Amino acid sequence: MANFLNNAWYVAFWISELDDKPLKKKILGRNVLFYRDSNGAAIGLSNECPHRFAPLHKGRIEGDTIECPYHGLRFDRTGLCVYNPYSDDCDGLPANAVLRAFPVVEKYRFIWVWMGDPQLANEAEIPDYSFLDNTAAFTATAEATLTMPVNYELILDNLMDLSHGQFLHATTLGNSAMAAGSTTARKVGNIVYSERLNPAGEVPLLFAPAQLVDAGALVDFWNDMWWAPGSCYYLEVGITPAGRPREEGVLIKSAQILTPVDERNTEYRHILYRDFLKENDAVTIAMEALVSKAFSEEDEPMLIEVQDGMAGKDFWELRPAILKGDRAAIMVRRTMQKLIEDELNSSLS
Amino acid sequence: MANFLNNAWYVAFWISELDDKPLKKKILGRNVLFYRDSNGAAIGLSNECPHRFAPLHKGRIEGDTIECPYHGLRFDRTGLCVYNPYSDDCDGLPANAVLRAFPVVEKYRFIWVWMGDPQLANEAEIPDYSFLDNTAAFTATAEATLTMPVNYELILDNLMDLSHGQFLHATTLGNSAMAAGSTTARKVGNIVYSERLNPAGEVPLLFAPAQLVDAGALVDFWNDMWWAPGSCYYLEVGITPAGRPREEGVLIKSAQILTPVDERNTEYRHILYRDFLKENDAVTIAMEALVSKAFSEEDEPMLIEVQDGMAGKDFWELRPAILKGDRAAIMVRRTMQKLIEDELNSSLS
Amino acid sequence: MANFLNNAWYVAFWISELDDKPLKKKILGRNVLFYRDSNGAAIGLSNECPHRFAPLHKGRIEGDTIECPYHGLRFDRTGLCVYNPYSDDCDGLPANAVLRAFPVVEKYRFIWVWMGDPQLANEAEIPDYSFLDNTAAFTATAEATLTMPVNYELILDNLMDLSHGQFLHATTLGNSAMAAGSTTARKVGNIVYSERLNPAGEVPLLFAPAQLVDAGALVDFWNDMWWAPGSCYYLEVGITPAGRPREEGVLIKSAQILTPVDERNTEYRHILYRDFLKENDAVTIAMEALVSKAFSEEDEPMLIEVQDGMAGKDFWELRPAILKGDRAAIMVRRTMQKLIEDELNSSLS
Repeated sequence: MANFLNNAWYVAFWISELDDKPLKKKILGRNVLFYRDSNGAAIGLSNECPHRFAPLHKGRIEGDTIECPYHGLRFDRTGLCVYNPYSDDCDGLPANAVLRAFPVVEKYRFIWVWMGDPQLANEAEIPDYSFLDNTAAFTATAEATLTMPVNYELILDNLMDLSHGQFLHATTLGNSAMAAGSTTARKVGNIVYSERLNPAGEVPLLFAPAQLVDAGALVDFWNDMWWAPGSCYYLEVGITPAGRPREEGVLIKSAQILTPVDERNTEYRHILYRDFLKENDAVTIAMEALVSKAFSEEDEPMLIEVQDGMAGKDFWELRPAILKGDRAAIMVRRTMQKLIEDELNSSLS
Repeated sequence: MANFLNNAWYVAFWISELDDKPLKKKILGRNVLFYRDSNGAAIGLSNECPHRFAPLHKGRIEGDTIECPYHGLRFDRTGLCVYNPYSDDCDGLPANAVLRAFPVVEKYRFIWVWMGDPQLANEAEIPDYSFLDNTAAFTATAEATLTMPVNYELILDNLMDLSHGQFLHATTLGNSAMAAGSTTARKVGNIVYSERLNPAGEVPLLFAPAQLVDAGALVDFWNDMWWAPGSCYYLEVGITPAGRPREEGVLIKSAQILTPVDERNTEYRHILYRDFLKENDAVTIAMEALVSKAFSEEDEPMLIEVQDGMAGKDFWELRPAILKGDRAAIMVRRTMQKLIEDELNSSLS
Repeated sequence: MANFLNNAWYVAFWISELDDKPLKKKILGRNVLFYRDSNGAAIGLSNECPHRFAPLHKGRIEGDTIECPYHGLRFDRTGLCVYNPYSDDCDGLPANAVLRAFPVVEKYRFIWVWMGDPQLANEAEIPDYSFLDNTAAFTATAEATLTMPVNYELILDNLMDLSHGQFLHATTLGNSAMAAGSTTARKVGNIVYSERLNPAGEVPLLFAPAQLVDAGALVDFWNDMWWAPGSCYYLEVGITPAGRPREEGVLIKSAQILTPVDERNTEYRHILYRDFLKENDAVTIAMEALVSKAFSEEDEPMLIEVQDGMAGKDFWELRPAILKGDRAAIMVRRTMQKLIEDELNSSLS
């Protein structure tokens, strides 16, 4: 499928999701089996048994192998069939009985899988979410997985231009000064940065509990984002008293990571780390309610209607009107398009 | 879509449906936004914002404009973007930011929209339902909107040959003499008339409450219909003592108007005006129950099965058997086919 | 549709299912009407009225004819329109008003229908299920109709290789010795035989109630199957004390008959006849619970996942790994493929 970039690291699970049971996850339209071997190492294989295409995630883990639930063939972590129970076959191993193996890495709270050519998998290319390991400095807030019935590119547009917070999230996350800000968009290698400053506005609703300034006092509000291939986003949002250095303010760092399920469905994992009122559970609960409402009741229904309104047509074919605030999103779309074309060309050559 | 006639007036709503909230209606496969400006005038625009295709009917009416709920662009009644809130753009208005405007007219209890070339829209071509304004002479009965999951042409066949009342509506609307009648079908311009007289039969069930004749006495029963493009029907049904002039009888005039939603769904609005027992609410309630049962429990399930039985094939390709009573329906099908072909040819030239 | 064999007998119903009401059954993607004439003889006709494609199974049986519920045309058992109620037509019978008639036979508890060229229908080709008439020697157990949302070929693979009982049915039907058996596959004419013996194992769970041997004693367990076109299976399973002749054992004969509804749905009728503990209702109930669980909770979910895993691709295109135990299933697939190709070629010539 030419609309997905295969040669990239995708998040399959939160590390805590994969325990001693095999699990299936559909990523880029393909079913991938995940399980842990006897050492606890995570393994990724194609989920269809090559004999009669039975779903291996319904099978049993036998030592370091997975046993097919239909006819009992067993496969090792490299995808090779290593056991055939039928005496008719004199323990012979059938031809073609091999699964595809996907490189898997556990890092920064996530299980990552490389969906493309295993030769090209390089763990060092996993985007830098090292702040997630710094649990001393931050309090984790609003860890969640959403499954949205929309193409991942619509979430891309949503994330790379946060100025919509003034309209779509007027009662949850935003403030009325967001449209007045200005955005800087730039690309370094294949990383796209979008940095937006909304000066001297009211406190955005998400930060109301931080009580940084007196009622009515103004703050500068920044939204700094980067995107890295395939669908990894980092967002830092913060406020500081109007005109003061950021160091005097408070901030939230967050991972916002998309896993395209197929052309019309996307898993969206996010987690926020805040540096203020860190022991205050009431603040955690209030922030989680706001984030949940904004993403599930505001963004998701909007994106479903957008997808319906596009009626299956290509984004560019629809000749969209472009605002300056769209620059970062368009950089990401073009970078992805280029990477997908390059991948397609190299697979043909 | 070559199966729809665009250059025609379609009913989008009952006038009473559109108040101070914007509404979306899918017509001929396209989403149309309707709202009222500050003078109460109804406006029809394409519903997808040209920036990121957000659904404008979820937005706010701001003065005479509609504001996009996603990023706040505003559009006037001609479809032009007249406000951009983002200071990055220095209040510049983006290229391509224009909606399609659809001519809209309020007349005869309905909001009509012209789905084709606005240059060709002529309010005088709205079919004549002026009887609907004569509320002194009639009592309105059974005003309803049905959404049937079938192609509009199947409802066309149903409406243009009412002889099926003897079989499909044997216990609701019809009588056992309907097959014995005879139909005259004729075409004047693009209007098709179907006039059917069922002589000297028992009182049809719909007219039982009128108590026009003694129990067991016979009546002549007429069903006179016209169709006008796109999908407008007028039906007059009446009874008179067998052999007597129609003036001695009672009658019901009705509007039966179809709005094709898409290839497989149709909105069906109908309203009956009766000239008998006008103050009798019990009669109103009884007639509404009969009409509702006939349309929703007899016609609709039948047409759903017909559509299923046709399995996506074209009507003519299936080589249907033709009865004389089908002449009017076939005139309508052929008139529509000609109008659609003409429209297609003129749009290509 | 090239994936179905039309020239074959298919089971439409258990005889007891068709009483005095007309019924519709979709077989090989086509809707067939079944009803009984005034002599009780079963009739099979295409279900769409040739006039406006109304569903005839919603109509009334009038003497030996079926009356269309929409406009009242009547058709006889040969499919001819024999009555038109409309006086406009002067009782003329419209051209093209003919239904397709399907040969129908009642035999061995089933109503069989021939879906292909009526000239080729030969009742003698109905596969031999004469054991079903021998109700003196057996007790009927687990008579049921399942509707599985899968292509019939996936059930074919399942039935023609019962060694999966050790894995998929480990707690319902099978035993742990099934993989240790050996299968003989052969073809005689167009009948494919698959005979499997699992020697000296524990008593399979389905036979536990038979109490043939003491706890812990071993049995030989046989699974003998034949398949005949289009989708008829006969299965005999039995156990005997290890090393002893089959005559000293107990057995179950069964009919397992598939009716392809369309490309993705199949009706599956089965009935078991057992020769042991024949008067014991508790055994009947226990066996029915095991069979129901195995088919509905183990086979069906497995086959749904297999169909999903195949993602619409052709079986051979997926280059499946082949085990020796697959020989019979592959013989059936190839026999069907040949029969379908021959049918297609003869219809083209």
